[in-house]
Amino acid sequence: MKRSGISVFLFILFFSIYGKAQKFEKLIQYVNPMIGTEKMGHTYPGATVPFGSVQLSPETDTISYELNGKYNGEVYKYCAGYRYEDKTIVGFSSTHFSGTGHSDLGDLLLMPTVGQLQLNPGTASHPEKGYRSRFSHQNEKAEAGYYQVKLEDHGILAELTATTRVGVHRYTFPKSDQSHIILDLMAGIYNYDGKNVWTYVRVENGNTITGYRQTSGWARTRTVYFAIQFSKPFKSYGQKNYDGKQVYGGFWRKFDQTRNFPEIAGKNLKMYFDFDTNENEAIEVKLALSPVSQKNALDNLEKETAQLSFDQVKAKAQEDWNKELNKIVIKSSETEKTNFYTALYHTFINPTTYMDVNGEYKGLDQNIHKAEDFTNYTTFSLWDTYRALHPLFNIIQPKRNDDIVKSMMAHYEQFSMKMLPIWSHYANENWCMSGYHSVSVVADAIIKGVYTGDAKEALKACVETANKRDYEGIGSYIDLGYIPAEKSGTSVSNTLEYAYDDWAIAQLAKHLGETEIYNQFIKRSENWKNNFDKSTGFMRPRLADGSFKKEFDLLSTHGQGFIEGNSWNYSFFVPQNPDALITLMGGKKKFSSKLDELFTMHLPDEFFADTEDITREGIIGGYVHGNEPAHHVAYLYNWAGQPWKTQSQIRQILDMQYKATPDGLGGNDDTGQMSAWYILSSLGFYPVAPGSEDYAIGSPAVDHATLNLENGKTFEVETINQSPKNVYVQKILLNGQEIKNFTLKHSDIVKGGKLTFYMSNKAKR
Amino acid sequence: MKRSGISVFLFILFFSIYGKAQKFEKLIQYVNPMIGTEKMGHTYPGATVPFGSVQLSPETDTISYELNGKYNGEVYKYCAGYRYEDKTIVGFSSTHFSGTGHSDLGDLLLMPTVGQLQLNPGTASHPEKGYRSRFSHQNEKAEAGYYQVKLEDHGILAELTATTRVGVHRYTFPKSDQSHIILDLMAGIYNYDGKNVWTYVRVENGNTITGYRQTSGWARTRTVYFAIQFSKPFKSYGQKNYDGKQVYGGFWRKFDQTRNFPEIAGKNLKMYFDFDTNENEAIEVKLALSPVSQKNALDNLEKETAQLSFDQVKAKAQEDWNKELNKIVIKSSETEKTNFYTALYHTFINPTTYMDVNGEYKGLDQNIHKAEDFTNYTTFSLWDTYRALHPLFNIIQPKRNDDIVKSMMAHYEQFSMKMLPIWSHYANENWCMSGYHSVSVVADAIIKGVYTGDAKEALKACVETANKRDYEGIGSYIDLGYIPAEKSGTSVSNTLEYAYDDWAIAQLAKHLGETEIYNQFIKRSENWKNNFDKSTGFMRPRLADGSFKKEFDLLSTHGQGFIEGNSWNYSFFVPQNPDALITLMGGKKKFSSKLDELFTMHLPDEFFADTEDITREGIIGGYVHGNEPAHHVAYLYNWAGQPWKTQSQIRQILDMQYKATPDGLGGNDDTGQMSAWYILSSLGFYPVAPGSEDYAIGSPAVDHATLNLENGKTFEVETINQSPKNVYVQKILLNGQEIKNFTLKHSDIVKGGKLTFYMSNKAKR
Repeated sequence: MKRSGISVFLFILFFSIYGKAQKFEKLIQYVNPMIGTEKMGHTYPGATVPFGSVQLSPETDTISYELNGKYNGEVYKYCAGYRYEDKTIVGFSSTHFSGTGHSDLGDLLLMPTVGQLQLNPGTASHPEKGYRSRFSHQNEKAEAGYYQVKLEDHGILAELTATTRVGVHRYTFPKSDQSHIILDLMAGIYNYDGKNVWTYVRVENGNTITGYRQTSGWARTRTVYFAIQFSKPFKSYGQKNYDGKQVYGGFWRKFDQTRNFPEIAGKNLKMYFDFDTNENEAIEVKLALSPVSQKNALDNLEKETAQLSFDQVKAKAQEDWNKELNKIVIKSSETEKTNFYTALYHTFINPTTYMDVNGEYKGLDQNIHKAEDFTNYTTFSLWDTYRALHPLFNIIQPKRNDDIVKSMMAHYEQFSMKMLPIWSHYANENWCMSGYHSVSVVADAIIKGVYTGDAKEALKACVETANKRDYEGIGSYIDLGYIPAEKSGTSVSNTLEYAYDDWAIAQLAKHLGETEIYNQFIKRSENWKNNFDKSTGFMRPRLADGSFKKEFDLLSTHGQGFIEGNSWNYSFFVPQNPDALITLMGGKKKFSSKLDELFTMHLPDEFFADTEDITREGIIGGYVHGNEPAHHVAYLYNWAGQPWKTQSQIRQILDMQYKATPDGLGGNDDTGQMSAWYILSSLGFYPVAPGSEDYAIGSPAVDHATLNLENGKTFEVETINQSPKNVYVQKILLNGQEIKNFTLKHSDIVKGGKLTFYMSNKAKR
Repeated sequence: MKRSGISVFLFILFFSIYGKAQKFEKLIQYVNPMIGTEKMGHTYPGATVPFGSVQLSPETDTISYELNGKYNGEVYKYCAGYRYEDKTIVGFSSTHFSGTGHSDLGDLLLMPTVGQLQLNPGTASHPEKGYRSRFSHQNEKAEAGYYQVKLEDHGILAELTATTRVGVHRYTFPKSDQSHIILDLMAGIYNYDGKNVWTYVRVENGNTITGYRQTSGWARTRTVYFAIQFSKPFKSYGQKNYDGKQVYGGFWRKFDQTRNFPEIAGKNLKMYFDFDTNENEAIEVKLALSPVSQKNALDNLEKETAQLSFDQVKAKAQEDWNKELNKIVIKSSETEKTNFYTALYHTFINPTTYMDVNGEYKGLDQNIHKAEDFTNYTTFSLWDTYRALHPLFNIIQPKRNDDIVKSMMAHYEQFSMKMLPIWSHYANENWCMSGYHSVSVVADAIIKGVYTGDAKEALKACVETANKRDYEGIGSYIDLGYIPAEKSGTSVSNTLEYAYDDWAIAQLAKHLGETEIYNQFIKRSENWKNNFDKSTGFMRPRLADGSFKKEFDLLSTHGQGFIEGNSWNYSFFVPQNPDALITLMGGKKKFSSKLDELFTMHLPDEFFADTEDITREGIIGGYVHGNEPAHHVAYLYNWAGQPWKTQSQIRQILDMQYKATPDGLGGNDDTGQMSAWYILSSLGFYPVAPGSEDYAIGSPAVDHATLNLENGKTFEVETINQSPKNVYVQKILLNGQEIKNFTLKHSDIVKGGKLTFYMSNKAKR
């Protein structure tokens, strides 16, 4: 595409507007989106902007969620659409989850091809039988906000970038009178026959189309509207209707709708657009999304990208990333910087913006709402993210976390069940995982002064959510203080999680002076004790008659009372009251020995046989870092009087579980929770119990860090004598005053100041 | 239901507001909605208000559009859902077409039952095997705006009434602790497996639900949103998901969603609501529709029926009907009045309002639009209704016809193909039948001074529509002046209809001073001559090489060059220029003999073998009144110098084709076209060529008529010596001046005045 005079002008104008970005350090050089794309990370390498609605990324397979009507375990690998191990690319679709362990999306796949038109994707072993193409990592590049790959079978260079709501593709073609861009409206992630509910496409003019894709998958009722604009008019276009309806016109079948027919609809459709291209001719494709309407998608396209070229959008995307990444400026080794900024990048992907430029979004009540004074977000994987991601946001993204809580409140108000979200998914509740952890996020944001909405109303929503008797054993939990094992396969983990959540509600109630609610929920927060079996010293399923379940394996998880964590890991899950747990477990000495055993035990091979989301790499001894329930556990040594073990374990986890390679993540990144753990732990502190102002101090892995806070203040983490071997903390000063209790307060950070760690290779006992 | 004090107050308030209606004659007594519900009429007996969005009416069968994957001819009988011949009622659904010969709708069927819950409808022969019930016509009553029936199997009296957007049901139950109201979301007209695309229901509170039903049928992409409010809270509720998904909660299947679960979605759903009822306890159900959203449906419910009881809604509906029917006040026999006012009732059902109280509607572009200065309508069966229904509206409903043309223009602007509607169907073009007859409606409305929009823009839309080369042979028609028989099974009727439509465009262009367009289209309007075969004197298919098709049967229709009319009927289809046709057919004498032959010929039995929409009752000789192409033909005797034959034939058709009995209509009412023919012909004049100011004068069947025009003037039709035998016109006076050319001008009516017919039993030759 030739750049016109006006776009050069805009380009200059644009850089003068964004010129202030020059004050930022160039940190995007340390982001490697390939990290986590191999094995268990479930991240994607494509282009997105911070918290963007569009996640434009390549797909490397077309695997189906169902095989012969049953769940196909293989699909799990493709939660993010792309696997580093693969050799072919199917195309580039507009939406992806980052780091999830179940999936959906993969909407609106585009693929440029040359030669005879093929509408089927082909197979990994025979890409030439379809539109897919071979590629190699040598001819691939992934950056924050930018991705490129050479499609070898077609001789096309594909590049991707994005704004918040618009994905921009640039395809550089060879000379051909058979150049095509395919829009595969049947493609998707965790797809299966019947998942596509309805698809509609309308050709608006010679280079613009609009439409929507409606699916029923992980989100039961979901529609994504789109508008696509090609930089060059297509010479012709067509479609194939896989429902078998090639003719159209009601009963009268008046039209052959396969060629140049401007309005198509059906359950299973593919479209294509034909072009003549010269050697190295680039065609840019802007694909805007909306949760509301085609009109809004066109409006988003117009407002965010009108007159902007691919290069201009890319420059803005990368400036935006740079600006966000500058919220924490560290000094460290190059490898450490790559780990750190890639982790920070991964924490700034989710939640995703779920609202149009004009503020409209679709609510859970299926109505269109307007977010008058906040940005509405979706993709809340709360079982994961309440632990470290939202607490991290309370430090470096308070405005966003404020809006995230407002989005949760909108979810609550619009949802027929009047519950805060469990897993908010594009105007759906997908019910994934356990607990009601949004209450933790709400409480933490209010207690830390981040939430600007009505706090009493938010407390009401928390209480209402926690009292849904029909939901996952809450009724029994309220009546008995635990969930009988007969009633639930996850009775113990549920009780433990509810008890923590109840504590968070109690803290919020206390904060708001609601004594009655405080009393009620602080009492409920002790329910964890009801699953503690003194005879074994472990959390154990309990039957309705009050007795503990006889058959019980400390290493088993699913169906044995737990979810994504066995009794060994969950028995430490009392983040709200480690002291009481220590007492019940027989005192500090016994407790720390038990922690030692967790980190050093040897797991039998059978342990890995029936799990899809845990590998040996994600485990240290019996401690599972690849899943979340034990994310706070290494910090518990502080309570047991052995902080040096916290320090060494944290550094070991940072070292072993996060590597600057495609296979570098020890588990699903879980929409940023794993990465947020990394960021906070490498800064030297961690929120063991969100809802409390306190952070437990661990061992910083950075040499120095400056946190640039939204209130204009800075908080520095300074280390003296820090090195990969000097993991032990000798002394901690906050603004020159020594901290002896290994606790940092949130207000200490927000006020600005300096935290100084004196490090050594010797544990200070 | 007990009436509260406030509703008594509102009832009184209401009647003082609508008290002015007392000046109207009570004409609804002459409306019998049962007329046309037997045999071919395809009308429905249920409750609707004039041009209402809701058509609340009983269904008497559950016949499927497809049988073993093929079209099931039997479904045709159930275009309107109810057949007088049937003995059981399945339930009451909210939307129906009136008089169509293909169908859709039948949304949101409600059925009250008592006893053990049954969710399947049962069969006509074994109603007890499902929720349906026996009924008899003795215990059934149909009025304008009101319907009631006793459901014998359940001992329930069901009553129906409506506002524009809300259907109101009243079910009077026996004493039972097992009273149910079923909402069958799978039920529908012309339904088949796979037609339901998606259904969503949300329980808002203890007596309110909202949701939508999305289908792909005659309308390819259609969603109807609803809100339902019960006058009494249900004690419990439930659903069955026929997709087989009784548990819900994503991958985790957390809920049994069959009982009291507030949010359900799927392709095939049925719901039910349980009540305890006392003897003769009435439960009222308000069911509001919206084309836009559940929020708008709730808003429609609130704005149109808040605080109104069933009886109040019924009173308002009947007052509204009475007001509309008073637009023409006739003197005549009681039977004639029943025919007349039932016909007038049928002309005021379609088009239907397609917009919410707040003005919003869904456009063909799938976006939400707001009708700022007009009421948006849908259900335009234009091949039928351009002939007499819209011309009738130009006389007695000019405001509505103005808005109808505005709705057509909105359709044109929002449609990807930029065409005026062929058959506008709930934000869809269903492409039914032939021609581009909206141009006739547009031209007629502008020429008669009814349209208040931009006339030049409307002409542009007409021209653009008439030049769609890809549509139904228009390209060939433009190039060759006719459509080659090889290319189309309806080549002759298409050419004839296009030629008339082109004449209408030419008249509009002349009216607007667009000489170039006039010249172009007046030339095209002569294309009918290209299908006239002088050797036989009939319209005949012609091949691409210019020769007439050899095998040709004057009596055949489909695939033989015609649609819904054979050459005998279509050969007279030159309404725009009867004089030229007469010349080509050999002069007035030959022409009138040919007309005589049409009306007196005997058709062989084979003629009726393969037609589903014509019976012997709908035919006089070879003249088919049950279909539309010859609706103007009886008036052509005027041009042949034998007006007395027009007079006697018109009276014969009025007498034979319209009877005040359920089987009284000789053909599909076709959304009011058949009825509009009746109204105009019985008043003594008819628009042979809409787009002209002229009406051809026939023979009035009323004794006297007063047309109450919207401009405040009245136009009287007075008859002297009128009787069933005195069908011949001796003299016609317009305001005392004799009319000799059997032509009345539209402006003569609009100015107000009196048309006096002197009648006799002797033809005046």
